[in-house]
This record gives sequence, structure tokens and C-alpha cells, in this order.
Amino acid sequence: MMRKMNVAIVGATGAVGTQMIKLLENSTLPLDTVKFLASKRSAGKQLSFKGETQTIEELVPDSFEGVDLALFSAGGGISAKFAPEAVKRGAVVVDNTSHFRMDPSVPLVVPEVNPEALRKHNGIIANPNCSTIQMMVALEPIRQAFGLNRIIVSTYQAVSGAGNQAMEELKQQTRDFLADKPLDEWQAEILPCGGDKKHYPLAFNALAQIDVFAEEGYTNEEWKMINETKKIMEDETIKVSATCVRIPVMSGHSESIYIETEKTATVAEIQELLSQAPGVVLEDDPSQQIYPQALNSVGKKETFVGRIRKDPDEEKGAHLWVVSDNLLKGAAWNSLQIAETMYEMGLFK
Amino acid sequence: MMRKMNVAIVGATGAVGTQMIKLLENSTLPLDTVKFLASKRSAGKQLSFKGETQTIEELVPDSFEGVDLALFSAGGGISAKFAPEAVKRGAVVVDNTSHFRMDPSVPLVVPEVNPEALRKHNGIIANPNCSTIQMMVALEPIRQAFGLNRIIVSTYQAVSGAGNQAMEELKQQTRDFLADKPLDEWQAEILPCGGDKKHYPLAFNALAQIDVFAEEGYTNEEWKMINETKKIMEDETIKVSATCVRIPVMSGHSESIYIETEKTATVAEIQELLSQAPGVVLEDDPSQQIYPQALNSVGKKETFVGRIRKDPDEEKGAHLWVVSDNLLKGAAWNSLQIAETMYEMGLFK
Repeated sequence: MMRKMNVAIVGATGAVGTQMIKLLENSTLPLDTVKFLASKRSAGKQLSFKGETQTIEELVPDSFEGVDLALFSAGGGISAKFAPEAVKRGAVVVDNTSHFRMDPSVPLVVPEVNPEALRKHNGIIANPNCSTIQMMVALEPIRQAFGLNRIIVSTYQAVSGAGNQAMEELKQQTRDFLADKPLDEWQAEILPCGGDKKHYPLAFNALAQIDVFAEEGYTNEEWKMINETKKIMEDETIKVSATCVRIPVMSGHSESIYIETEKTATVAEIQELLSQAPGVVLEDDPSQQIYPQALNSVGKKETFVGRIRKDPDEEKGAHLWVVSDNLLKGAAWNSLQIAETMYEMGLFK
Repeated sequence: MMRKMNVAIVGATGAVGTQMIKLLENSTLPLDTVKFLASKRSAGKQLSFKGETQTIEELVPDSFEGVDLALFSAGGGISAKFAPEAVKRGAVVVDNTSHFRMDPSVPLVVPEVNPEALRKHNGIIANPNCSTIQMMVALEPIRQAFGLNRIIVSTYQAVSGAGNQAMEELKQQTRDFLADKPLDEWQAEILPCGGDKKHYPLAFNALAQIDVFAEEGYTNEEWKMINETKKIMEDETIKVSATCVRIPVMSGHSESIYIETEKTATVAEIQELLSQAPGVVLEDDPSQQIYPQALNSVGKKETFVGRIRKDPDEEKGAHLWVVSDNLLKGAAWNSLQIAETMYEMGLFK
């Protein structure tokens, strides 16, 4: 049994950091100390952890002295600068940003899917993109049993993935709508993407842009789903294509996933498989109108799967409707679960 | 030149009927009289047409005496009972319900796509399902130029397609959310489908059910998209599969459409084609964050297409994001456009 662990949370005040703290309060990790790190702006603020008041400290390289585990969720720039500093001081970093995900020396891990990749870490483990994680949880059992040739996914993503301010913006637009305020007077300064030039209202709308546009007309979010899927499944030959869309939902990403399997699989076989798959809750009974819903997923760690159907015109094609809390399994929980899994595997020194 | 026409609108007080009246005020059809028909409950109510007050009459078989054109949008049961009565009395019926759509003797028409089918009518012409229409407007030019082997669509559908009461329900749930009312106290009595057993909240949610569940785990809405596409395109060999989802949008259906063409087509070729296609507005410039949005489509007759991209792993695969006002091109406008097209083709006796 390892000694108790010193943990640091970087980005403690953000939408993901807040969830991380709640989860850490109930974690199976044996905790010694926990410190909360944030930018100079948030330093000095107080928060509650296990009933005790804690003060947020300013993030500096020496913050990581004596830290065993550092959970980062404060933007790619912060991770780029400070994750190596944490590693240098002996910490294991689980990074929730996209910065290290495609680095060949960094494992990209969904614990239900590729825990063995954790053994190859060099100090940093990357947490995949929220929309990728829940898709992997649902599809890996199918890939193992029937093979997977192809994935075509359309997402219905919640606004909490864009942070607390984006959630407030959606609420304000919603109030504006109910007050019959003309559309051109709605405040839109963040969505679809804080770092981009133009901003559009999300309330009572669907925005087919998440993150900025990149190569070949795809957004970064779409490329993340494509590239991360191939890395996590360790198979460059799977065809993957994605359309990522933000809808006016606070938390809970939904995904309409189309797959083509290698071997033919019946609906009953896929249902049976997923009913026993780790991290999956099967909610699939059309006769009782049972299917996953974003609102029902909030606060839960599992990935919910339903609407499993065969393509009427393609023997090896099938649909799934996959829903999960993007702040939990999509971010905070998967990060902490990586740490717990590493602990169980004896990977902390 | 034909004499002026007598027109009847059946279901004048509904969400679609209201739009129908507005459009008819500006129609190119030469109008003599216009009568508004509805159930006994709505009869006697007044509405305004071209600045004059009109009284809604109760729908009975003899309502159609002397009527040249009857536009039906009052539910499948009403169409089943009264459309034949209208035809018997010499009227041409354009029916916005699903009742006659798959009847082999009834043309199912999107004027930009298959106007010639109108010549084969036997008194009734069916208006396709809202989500099918906008997909046909966007895909038919591609089918003609490059051939079309396959369609996989995921929809993001607005609540106005479920009627005025459903819109009110969404508004009330939205108020409940903003007032921090617990989820289990939100009123949900209509959505996802008025005629089904269970009802769920739509505010800040995504419901993967539109209409009731039918064969093979597909909903009726999904089967409509599949079957109507093959009928309108007059090609049983096109592979079509669909996932239909209601999202908290008032009006404007969005669709994430994946296609596989027969011949290889570049993005530039598809853009060029659609920029000149009837009824299509191309909104596709990622560098300027230009893509179709539900909120921008409201009140417009066109179908907006953007996010055109090739599948990175499949030479003949491509994505499109297709948006249109479901009450206009998806319902009232397509119905009236059918009538105007028939008039131009000399199909009224």
C-alpha cells in the first residue's frame, strides 16, 4: 500500500474544476493534502472541501513541490507551461485540455477502453475530449466483439463544455427570448467559441460550430473526435467522420452515432453486450419510450446508450444514441478515474 | 388564363394554417374567394385576411362546394375523412398530413424536385414531411449531377412542428428552469408526441423521439424520412437511414446529412451546384464562420445549406448542414408552392 497522496487541482474555479472537487471528496484515492491552484485573479478566494474552508493558491512552478497527482483543467496554455513543471517535481499530471492529447509519448486514456496505455506514461496522461470519451465507452465493446469499420457521428453538445460564462450567456439569451427582446439585441459575446471572431446566439438555436475551424472545413472539435478515436482504439484504419453541434442544453452531451461493424451484429446482441459493458447503462426500450436523455444524465458518471437499430438498407450498419454528463465522464470524472485506475494498477511511485 | 380561384384552408387556426394564411395573402394565385374551415370548436372565430375580417366556418362535406383548391393541415384523421369529399366536389386537395403520402396513386411533391409528378394526380397531392422536404431540396441537385447511393441523416428539429401547444409547453418549461423549479415539477403533457403514453421535458434537453415508435425501433418520423425520400426521388435503391431528434428550438429544422455519391464530387463542385439550385441558399464559408442557423431561417422560404465537407476517410462521402423554416418550406410554403406550380403548369381545370 502506497503512502497517502498529495493532490493539486489546477483550474479549481472553472466548470470542470468545480465538479473535480466534488468527485475528489468521494474518491477512493487515499488523500493526504489537497491544494487548489488557479490564476492570480482567483488566488485568495475560498472554497469548501470535505466541509473545511480552503484558500485557492496562485499557480506557480513551485506549487507542485511534494505533489503526487496534479489534475489540470485550466486551458491548453496553462497545461503547456505548467504540466512539465509538475512532472519535473515528481508529480503525475492528468491533463483535461487538448494540449498533449495527440503527443505520441502521452497516453490518451478512457479507463474502460485502454487502461493498459497508462503503463507507458512519462508523467503526463491526457484526458480525451468530452464528446470522444462517451463515444469510446459505448463503441469499444462493439469493436471488440464485432469489429468496427466505420463511425459517422453527429453531436448535440451542451453549453457547459464551453465554461461557466457561456452557460450564463445562454441563460441571459433565454431570458431575452421570453421577454420578447428582438434577436439583434440578445447578448452574444462568447458562443460558439470564445476565441473566434464572430459570436451567435445559442438560445433556441443550433450552432454547427464547436471550437474554431481548421483543415478541410472541419472544426477542431470534429478533428478531435476523428483523431482521438483512432489513437484511443489504436486503429488508424477505422473510418471516422464527425459533425459537432452545440444546442441549448446546459449539461449532457447527446450523440447520434452510426457504425458499420466488421461482422454482422443483431440489435439483441449489441444490447446484451452493452448491458454488461463497464461504464455503460443501457436505456433502450422503444415500447416503453425508454431512451437516454441529456437532462437525466446530469450528475451521473455513466454513459447511457439507447435507440439501437439496424440500418434498414445496410446489413452491417447500426445506429446508437449515446448520452453522458460532459462535465463528469466527459471531463472531471474521466480525469479522476484515470488517477484512481493508475493507483489500483500501482503506477504511482 | 383560368378564371379566378376559390380556395379553402382546412385547419386555419393551427401553427401551419396561420402561416398558410400569411403566404396566401401574397400568393401569385388569382384568388376569387377564400374560406377558412376548422373544427366546430374553432368555428365562429374571426381572423384577418388581406385586411378584412373573416369568420371561420365549421368543416362539413358541403364546405367544398365550388372550391377549386383546398389546403389541408388539420391532422391525418380530418384529411382521411374530408379530402375525398373535397375531391368529389371538384376541388384539388393539397394535403399537409401524412395520411396519403405513401398512397401510390397520390403524388408526393417538392416543386423544386419532382414537379412532373403533379401531372399524375387524381385530385389529391401530398405535401411531404417537413424534415424530408428540406433534405430533398438540398440533395436532388447532387443526385442529378453525381448520383446518390446513400443518405444518413440526424435531425435537430424545432418544436413548432408539434404545434402551438407544444411551443407553449416548451416556453413554460423554460420559465420553470429559469425560476429554478425542480425538474420533476416541470409540466410535460405533450412532448415528445401528443398521442403517446409518456411525456418528457424538452427545455434544455434533446429528445430522440418524434412521433410514435414503429417497426424495427424506428419512429414514424424516421420512417417518413426513409420512405418519402425514395418515393420523391423515384429510386428504391438509395440507401436511407435517419435519426430524428427534437431540440429546444421554436422554429427552424437543422439536419446533419451524410451522403455517398455515385461519382466523386469535390466540395467546390457541390458548392457551385447548390449556389445555383432552385430554393437553395448556400451559406458556406468557414473562414468567415458562415453556416446556416435555425434562428436565421425563420420566416424564410428557402433551404439553407453549409458545412459542406468531404469525409476524410471516404472519397465519395460528404457532409452537409441543412436548415429551413419547418412551418414554411417544411409545410405551409411547400403546400402553397405546389398549388402555384400546378397553376403555372395549367393543371387546374
